Amino acid sequence: MQIAMIQDQIIPIKELEPIHLDRGIFFGDGVYEVLRSYNGRIFALEEHLQRFTNSLSAIAINGVDINTIRSRILKSFDAADISNARIYFHITRGSELRKHLSSADLEPNFFLTITELEDDIQIKKKGILVSTHPDWRWKRCDIKSLNLLANVLARRDAALKGCDEAILVDEAGFITEAASSAFFSISEQTLQTSPLTANILPSITRQFVLKAGRNIGLETIEKSITPQQVCSADELFIASTTQDISPVIKFDGKLIGDGRPGKYTKLLTQEYLSFTA
Amino acid sequence: MQIAMIQDQIIPIKELEPIHLDRGIFFGDGVYEVLRSYNGRIFALEEHLQRFTNSLSAIAINGVDINTIRSRILKSFDAADISNARIYFHITRGSELRKHLSSADLEPNFFLTITELEDDIQIKKKGILVSTHPDWRWKRCDIKSLNLLANVLARRDAALKGCDEAILVDEAGFITEAASSAFFSISEQTLQTSPLTANILPSITRQFVLKAGRNIGLETIEKSITPQQVCSADELFIASTTQDISPVIKFDGKLIGDGRPGKYTKLLTQEYLSFTA
Repeated sequence: MQIAMIQDQIIPIKELEPIHLDRGIFFGDGVYEVLRSYNGRIFALEEHLQRFTNSLSAIAINGVDINTIRSRILKSFDAADISNARIYFHITRGSELRKHLSSADLEPNFFLTITELEDDIQIKKKGILVSTHPDWRWKRCDIKSLNLLANVLARRDAALKGCDEAILVDEAGFITEAASSAFFSISEQTLQTSPLTANILPSITRQFVLKAGRNIGLETIEKSITPQQVCSADELFIASTTQDISPVIKFDGKLIGDGRPGKYTKLLTQEYLSFTA
Repeated sequence: MQIAMIQDQIIPIKELEPIHLDRGIFFGDGVYEVLRSYNGRIFALEEHLQRFTNSLSAIAINGVDINTIRSRILKSFDAADISNARIYFHITRGSELRKHLSSADLEPNFFLTITELEDDIQIKKKGILVSTHPDWRWKRCDIKSLNLLANVLARRDAALKGCDEAILVDEAGFITEAASSAFFSISEQTLQTSPLTANILPSITRQFVLKAGRNIGLETIEKSITPQQVCSADELFIASTTQDISPVIKFDGKLIGDGRPGKYTKLLTQEYLSFTA
């Protein structure tokens, strides 16, 4: 008889809940998004839905109605009634016995969580520490997929070094982005970040940060940079959907500027937060 | 209230089964093995357990007792009572609300399936078709992790081209391995496959194939090869735990040899199967 075992319990395979045969867990065969709300309003919902549509298309998960996804998000956001919420959702290709080539008729699985998001004001006041790690990720980081073990291992390595985030460095020696955020430097009133390639997630926060930079009068440049170069930058910061802008005060143990969040980083944060109101 | 949504059903997050918060699905944060039995006997169990131990260690999932894993495999294999079985198992870092940096006290999740394996004798008689695909996988393919979307997409591309397996080609133009098998060529009585690097899974089947090659008097060489070079090989084949040796008769549409499984491939298969008896 075909069987499964969960921890040390044997059960007939036919009695398994579909979640146990989710291709998300066997292969990471799915894509996801993370949104947040500020004061009861979801920020940049349409931008995230557009990227999600692109991700689904890139891995050929077909037949998902994006209007249904939007409705589910709005319905659950209403039900949760959390003012500052983290909204996570993913879709996987579906559930079946494990095989690389999926069956054609699988129904995709949708999963979402809405949880409380507590903004840590100390981060903006004091800044964070980061350390570098080789960028071990796959070659299609432009797809927001569930294959995130390289990110997890880099983040874990940073924690072991007493740091808050890992900055990923490719084989050519250039910074791509951070394990779960975009990375920026400011020098001589110029805001710099990596250009969008197959190795970079098209971060929505990144787009709003670049816009904020232009709004406050900074030059913006999308060009790769090395760890050596950023150590002499005036200011560094990371940016992500849930944490928006976090000043970086130490990079691989080296103090950035005077070791305090920089003035343009503060101005950018104000401008960015004005978008979310 | 913190909530989850599964398809279109809202439930309080506290009522979720742990499987829904498995880091395996959020990040592919786990490692796996596939074994098979021939006529009621599991083949190469200790080799697979050793590799599994290495994989767990490489991603720092700690505290797993490999003797417990062995016992669970043997107990469930007995319970299933399937003569030619496919045995799949994985361990993930555990279940909790999604965050890149895991909590320290997580209990790893173990999952196993035992299913019927039907050997397709036509494959050995007629051979299979393969097509190339860029190797999009991450840079630690020596770890047998659940991050397999690149493999899935390559395999899917092969199927769309009417082929049975995808041969992965790195940025330098060399074949690494196949989407879910090792890849070999034979020319002038020399058996060739890629050397083991961080971009190659240390395939257990590969080791037994190389041994079989030496036993039947072939030279063996571990050296990278290009798609152009393999098209003029005498014989090609792929090898995996569940399918052992499958002759390749077409590579990107080009006929290999006389378009029939080669004589050394047949001899190798006989020798390989003698190990499993």
